[in-house]
Amino acid sequence: MAIDFEITSAANPEIKSIRALNTKKGRTEQGAFLSEGLRHVIEAARVGWVIRRLVISKAARQGPLLEEARRACVESGGRVLVVPPALMERIAKRDNAQSVIAVIEQRRRALDDIPGDGAEVYLVLEEARDPGNLGSILRTADAFGISGVVLVGACCDPFSVEAVRASMGSVVNVPLTEIDRDGFLAWHAGWRGATVGTHLKGTALPGLRDLKGGVLILMGNEQAGLSAPLSDICETLVRIPMRAGSDSLNLAAATAIMAYEATAAGFAEPQ
Amino acid sequence: MAIDFEITSAANPEIKSIRALNTKKGRTEQGAFLSEGLRHVIEAARVGWVIRRLVISKAARQGPLLEEARRACVESGGRVLVVPPALMERIAKRDNAQSVIAVIEQRRRALDDIPGDGAEVYLVLEEARDPGNLGSILRTADAFGISGVVLVGACCDPFSVEAVRASMGSVVNVPLTEIDRDGFLAWHAGWRGATVGTHLKGTALPGLRDLKGGVLILMGNEQAGLSAPLSDICETLVRIPMRAGSDSLNLAAATAIMAYEATAAGFAEPQ
Repeated sequence: MAIDFEITSAANPEIKSIRALNTKKGRTEQGAFLSEGLRHVIEAARVGWVIRRLVISKAARQGPLLEEARRACVESGGRVLVVPPALMERIAKRDNAQSVIAVIEQRRRALDDIPGDGAEVYLVLEEARDPGNLGSILRTADAFGISGVVLVGACCDPFSVEAVRASMGSVVNVPLTEIDRDGFLAWHAGWRGATVGTHLKGTALPGLRDLKGGVLILMGNEQAGLSAPLSDICETLVRIPMRAGSDSLNLAAATAIMAYEATAAGFAEPQ
Repeated sequence: MAIDFEITSAANPEIKSIRALNTKKGRTEQGAFLSEGLRHVIEAARVGWVIRRLVISKAARQGPLLEEARRACVESGGRVLVVPPALMERIAKRDNAQSVIAVIEQRRRALDDIPGDGAEVYLVLEEARDPGNLGSILRTADAFGISGVVLVGACCDPFSVEAVRASMGSVVNVPLTEIDRDGFLAWHAGWRGATVGTHLKGTALPGLRDLKGGVLILMGNEQAGLSAPLSDICETLVRIPMRAGSDSLNLAAATAIMAYEATAAGFAEPQ
């Protein structure tokens, strides 16, 4: 049976450091992030993420899943904190907070751990700035079995509360890599699969289903698109067909179409 | 030359009624909405939307486009207001507000004005609740030349500030219809095109490119998916292929894939 620690004050230092995870500074200092909702916390624990703190509202309904989350937290060396609902709202910074919030240890994959000759599909986002877009893209990547998302240059934080929320828990299912542009270009020199960029000046259609071997799908920044150095390493530049006069899709929408095109053939027909 | 009215006080009744457009109540009472940014305002004016008020920051750079917006506003009987930057921020409810904000008259298309035997593709959203999703879907619909978006049941407001922002101006390019479920079902009895629903229990693949004639693409609510009454009118239920174990995409992402599949064949190959 896990031991619960009851805390009632927002001034408690443990609560303060949990609340600090709402900021980029706090997340970087602690190497952790907030995940809200029992279902998402359980999903993270089941795939091996370390739960450092499990914060449970006094109003939470007890049950086997909550027990499982408690055990996972304690077994990975964490502490279970029980707090009043009002304090949950201060931690989550919103009304009607979830009744379970976890502090989870951040985890990234080093770029060098991506095999240069695998058969996988990766999404590479250059300077993606909108956390809602990034979260939605993680969810898409998870749904389509994308092997990883590589964030190149000054992207927004994939572990921000907004990105994690928009990912609907997928942030724990998709290996994440963060790298600066030079580092990515150096690594790419050894990549032996295909490199496909999405670009308004592209001439290819998005149909990627016949590509064999590994594929990197490069998506540019929301405003500026792909930079010249990243466009230059693509052997194919794709333009999603749009009506004359229209020049853009939301980044998450465009990425969903590309991920769908790159992977759809890989799944069995639906039952 | 348009006549500018200079206003400096947030207590000015005209400013108060403009600020009220940040609320659903205000938008409904006035039948208007806020559009931010000169480019979007110009786009609206050029396709014939009525600009009731054009609010220009004193810090705005003058130029021919701003002149065009001024003229469009005055010609449609509106007034041009010049305000200090701080007041722009109070109207937009954010820092770094755009230097041009317009009050535009809402416009909808009656369901009966959608021809039952046309060759067009329409998106039908049932109880879409997230304004960011709805805005992104409007942008997607615009990019793919979708002929209209029909909002069925209790959807969020397509004219909310958040939806309009996420649409990146596309809200003025895509005819919008709002209707309750019974009204939609009654209208649908006369629809002679195809009706395709997106559903986790679907068995068809998304490939819609061979469909001839009009197509309705039905998308369900973010949480609940398509309701039984709306699923029942679909002759085809499509499931976007996902990895085993994954059960969802963001609504805007799923809609982008469906809109792409339904229209991609209709566009010329990119140049």
